[in-house]
Amino acid sequence: MEVAILRIGHRYIRDGRTTTHLFLVARAFGADRVIYTGQRDKGIEGEIREITESWGGSFKVVHIESWESTVKKWREGGGEVIHLTMYGLPIQDVIGKIRASMREKLVAVGGAKVPGSIYKLVDWNVAVTSQPHSEVGALSVFLHELFEGKELSKSFQNAKLVIMPQSKGKKVMKKS
Amino acid sequence: MEVAILRIGHRYIRDGRTTTHLFLVARAFGADRVIYTGQRDKGIEGEIREITESWGGSFKVVHIESWESTVKKWREGGGEVIHLTMYGLPIQDVIGKIRASMREKLVAVGGAKVPGSIYKLVDWNVAVTSQPHSEVGALSVFLHELFEGKELSKSFQNAKLVIMPQSKGKKVMKKS
Repeated sequence: MEVAILRIGHRYIRDGRTTTHLFLVARAFGADRVIYTGQRDKGIEGEIREITESWGGSFKVVHIESWESTVKKWREGGGEVIHLTMYGLPIQDVIGKIRASMREKLVAVGGAKVPGSIYKLVDWNVAVTSQPHSEVGALSVFLHELFEGKELSKSFQNAKLVIMPQSKGKKVMKKS
Repeated sequence: MEVAILRIGHRYIRDGRTTTHLFLVARAFGADRVIYTGQRDKGIEGEIREITESWGGSFKVVHIESWESTVKKWREGGGEVIHLTMYGLPIQDVIGKIRASMREKLVAVGGAKVPGSIYKLVDWNVAVTSQPHSEVGALSVFLHELFEGKELSKSFQNAKLVIMPQSKGKKVMKKS
């Protein structure tokens, strides 16, 4: 089952760190790729590409113009779209159903301004707590629940750098 | 059992959004307070205070000078300190033990530059995946695991704003 992330409305510079964190969380927690709208940011794209080259896997970042047509096409193609929002249904009530459906998942995550039209265009509006916090936090817990923690031991193919977990200190294995 | 977060080395402006997200995740996922070092940032402190006034609870943010003396005092007082780092032991292997101990928890989360000395000063170095991603993602999944998902339905006392979860759209109840 493919899992892609849709980041809506990236703003150059202003959202830099948050969007980078969001993309890295998407990769680390087992999503296949990120699609983003808003201003194109080659700096972030390069950063994520370098991380993937060093740390492995085949994670991809793609910039597109319209989130709306992406959402529509995804659903027309048989996939389902989950929008993470503090106003949605509690994740603990709906994750079982979302997990059980084998439809490919597009997980939409807004930034500062998400157009109100999105609520009706998606299959699910899901809240990771109904409190204001962070799209980075929401996405990480959502993926962690979707994959039931299996993502924590995911191995990344062709990694040049691999961490050997330690109780104290740092140990990184370099492969050439 | 008290759970506090220790954010090390905040940099004014540069870390603004990330630190704000981190503090909001700490609050939303059930921590009692945040202690932070680095540059004091009254803007963020005010922002978190306003959120707590509107959305309830008794979450606190405190700036301190030395993370080292805080870590030492916490342990001398019988509490345990958990440092979140990609180099640490996998969370899935250690969270059971951490959860089972009733010692008060201080969860240390670094920023760009965490001094190497921290690894030996804490009880646990814990990795939420051994991949580079985000301290915001790491903290949210750590707290979610620590509280076993119960934090998702936590209610916040004296909230002026309460969201009524909806499958489509937004609904906020205002209390006066």
